[in-house]
Amino acid sequence: MNIDQANADATERMIEARAVLVGLEKARDVIPGMHDNLLLHAGPPITWERASGPLRGALTGALIFEGKARDKAEAQALIERGEIDLEPCHHHQTVGPMAGVTSPSMSVYVIENATHGNRAFSNLNEGYGKVLRYGAFDEEVQQRLRWMEEVMAPVLKKAIEASGGIDIKALLSEALHMGDEGHNRNKAGSILYLKALAPHVARVSPDSDTASAVLQAIGDNALSVLNPVMAACKAMADAAHGIDGSTIVTAMARNGTDFGIRVSGLGERWFTAPAQIPKGLYFPGYGDDDANADIGDSTITETAGIGGFAMAAAPAIVTFVSGTAQDALHATMEMYEITYGEHKYFTIPPMDFRGTPTGIDLRKVIETGITPRVNTGIAHKEPGIGQIGAGLVRPPMVIFEEALVTFAEAYEI
Amino acid sequence: MNIDQANADATERMIEARAVLVGLEKARDVIPGMHDNLLLHAGPPITWERASGPLRGALTGALIFEGKARDKAEAQALIERGEIDLEPCHHHQTVGPMAGVTSPSMSVYVIENATHGNRAFSNLNEGYGKVLRYGAFDEEVQQRLRWMEEVMAPVLKKAIEASGGIDIKALLSEALHMGDEGHNRNKAGSILYLKALAPHVARVSPDSDTASAVLQAIGDNALSVLNPVMAACKAMADAAHGIDGSTIVTAMARNGTDFGIRVSGLGERWFTAPAQIPKGLYFPGYGDDDANADIGDSTITETAGIGGFAMAAAPAIVTFVSGTAQDALHATMEMYEITYGEHKYFTIPPMDFRGTPTGIDLRKVIETGITPRVNTGIAHKEPGIGQIGAGLVRPPMVIFEEALVTFAEAYEI
Repeated sequence: MNIDQANADATERMIEARAVLVGLEKARDVIPGMHDNLLLHAGPPITWERASGPLRGALTGALIFEGKARDKAEAQALIERGEIDLEPCHHHQTVGPMAGVTSPSMSVYVIENATHGNRAFSNLNEGYGKVLRYGAFDEEVQQRLRWMEEVMAPVLKKAIEASGGIDIKALLSEALHMGDEGHNRNKAGSILYLKALAPHVARVSPDSDTASAVLQAIGDNALSVLNPVMAACKAMADAAHGIDGSTIVTAMARNGTDFGIRVSGLGERWFTAPAQIPKGLYFPGYGDDDANADIGDSTITETAGIGGFAMAAAPAIVTFVSGTAQDALHATMEMYEITYGEHKYFTIPPMDFRGTPTGIDLRKVIETGITPRVNTGIAHKEPGIGQIGAGLVRPPMVIFEEALVTFAEAYEI
Repeated sequence: MNIDQANADATERMIEARAVLVGLEKARDVIPGMHDNLLLHAGPPITWERASGPLRGALTGALIFEGKARDKAEAQALIERGEIDLEPCHHHQTVGPMAGVTSPSMSVYVIENATHGNRAFSNLNEGYGKVLRYGAFDEEVQQRLRWMEEVMAPVLKKAIEASGGIDIKALLSEALHMGDEGHNRNKAGSILYLKALAPHVARVSPDSDTASAVLQAIGDNALSVLNPVMAACKAMADAAHGIDGSTIVTAMARNGTDFGIRVSGLGERWFTAPAQIPKGLYFPGYGDDDANADIGDSTITETAGIGGFAMAAAPAIVTFVSGTAQDALHATMEMYEITYGEHKYFTIPPMDFRGTPTGIDLRKVIETGITPRVNTGIAHKEPGIGQIGAGLVRPPMVIFEEALVTFAEAYEI
């Protein structure tokens, strides 16, 4: 067995995957295996019992949104009675930021990998403040979710269809030349997304006030494109999954309790360990003691070679973690130590257009002792509060060690 | 007389000027001194006889647009008979890219300096390809100009008014954190501009097809915001003009034949010398022999501390002049040698948010022998052809020498 060849194949598939946004559909109509009593969540599998505050809050909010519960006690009872199934987004070709909770009635972006044919999904981004993905679930959150479903989603669906598809990979390539790293900073990407949609939004909206409101909502939210970007990265990573003998990491995800990874050559198995508290800057009035452990599927961006791996492209983001422009360069340089390849399409102008470090190689993580660098938002540990900061986190080394031991056993090395 | 104090005042006024886009009006209704038989052009004063190909082409195109001539011979005859006056944009609080020709029936952006009260103007950007500003004037160009005036301008006018004003200085600050330098690269700025306008365009357009077409035109043109940016820089530079005893340069402009500068403490006088051929990359099939000498008022961006002076913010642009990211940093570093101050609001992430070099000091240019660095497009020397490349140019040193001698005489130093 030639591990290098397998890794070359996996990385090339990841890099050559062309992720195109082709539609917006109700989750129940399009996500494989989705059903009326299923909630998807970020990260590896978890039970209500072990779920963190923000995940419990988001699950509650989704059940209220679905009309199945009125409050947290009812939500908890439903789930504990086994009437609602909880499964990872990742088991359903889906990814979601932070709690990542996706329910049957929510609209999801449909991403198609035009190169290899696989698809991936992600829900709509709610914007900032009190939002479901950070575990908030009150009436304000519900109103926003309803507006998104009833007003914004029908317009977006028609606009995406009228556009003939939006090449999210090309959009990301451009955004990386405009100071985004594609995970914590999607400012350029979100207005490139607005630019692609705007002429269609104007045409397909039922009236000019609706067109105006939708354009405002997309333009004002500098994370508008995060969810399509995450689904695009999921489509890229999935294209690299299942290569016999490959040690390339194809998923990194956190449920707020555990950090989990999957490896291309090791099937559907998760390797997990307790998630850590991100290091970063807190909003005024908050600190480490308030922070939930690391949460969300957005680490799919680093898995696909952007986010923390593309820090050098986004020097303006360093203020987030109180660093310097030099730190941003070093962050990317460090990630070359643990990746198999360099991206052909995602390039970094301040590094003379060098490709981003892409395809985390389990072996290199172990050899160098360097774990992947992940940019992230920080959620309050209590449900209903929301984001309290942003920063940097790394997965626990032990999951890479376990994965490598398992790899050695599985392949009888 | 305290030159340093005068320069500190001038530079502070330039930096503190808050340029806001407040409207769009017909040139004849709003530009001071504009009349039916006046054409404004880029750079210092010039006659038809000495005008370069692209300027002649643009003057012809503007007279066709105004219904005063049918072809170049008629245009030339009108101008040479003295029936049409030619005056610099700069003499009328106006700036225009490349040929910069502005005629009475064209719509112009109205920029107001909210700090000091002065105003500045610039016409609409036509986009790429065969365009008036590069000297093209045929029916294709005329059709585009008519569509801009008849369809786009009324919508933009209402949208700008509905927005309550767009702070172009704030937009520029943001764009410099998104890989723009504000002169040759206005990619981020143009979609930030789209973002600011889009919700209003949707609401004020007569119908959804018009809204869609206007949003498409603004979004597709990565130079949409160049003209408001230039007028904003003009408002900033004008705020610094007329400070007794100041050696700060408040205008740099080229008419395709001469490069001219004005100095804060030296009134309305231009110091001029022959403009040079830019050094840069040509579109396939073109070379130095086809190039016109440097042309346009867009050097107002460098005058105000962006453009070539902010190269370090825009590493993606170096491919334009076949340089490296390091060259971009050096370009900005070099400009600190000849500027009085550092900008408070225009900052450069890859330099840890250092302010851009702002306020060219005549004395420092002479002392160091370093002339300002200007990014520019390259026009074909024959009228009617258009852009053939882009690159870098520097003004002739002799105009700074002349200005300093004049300064010494005027102030009896």
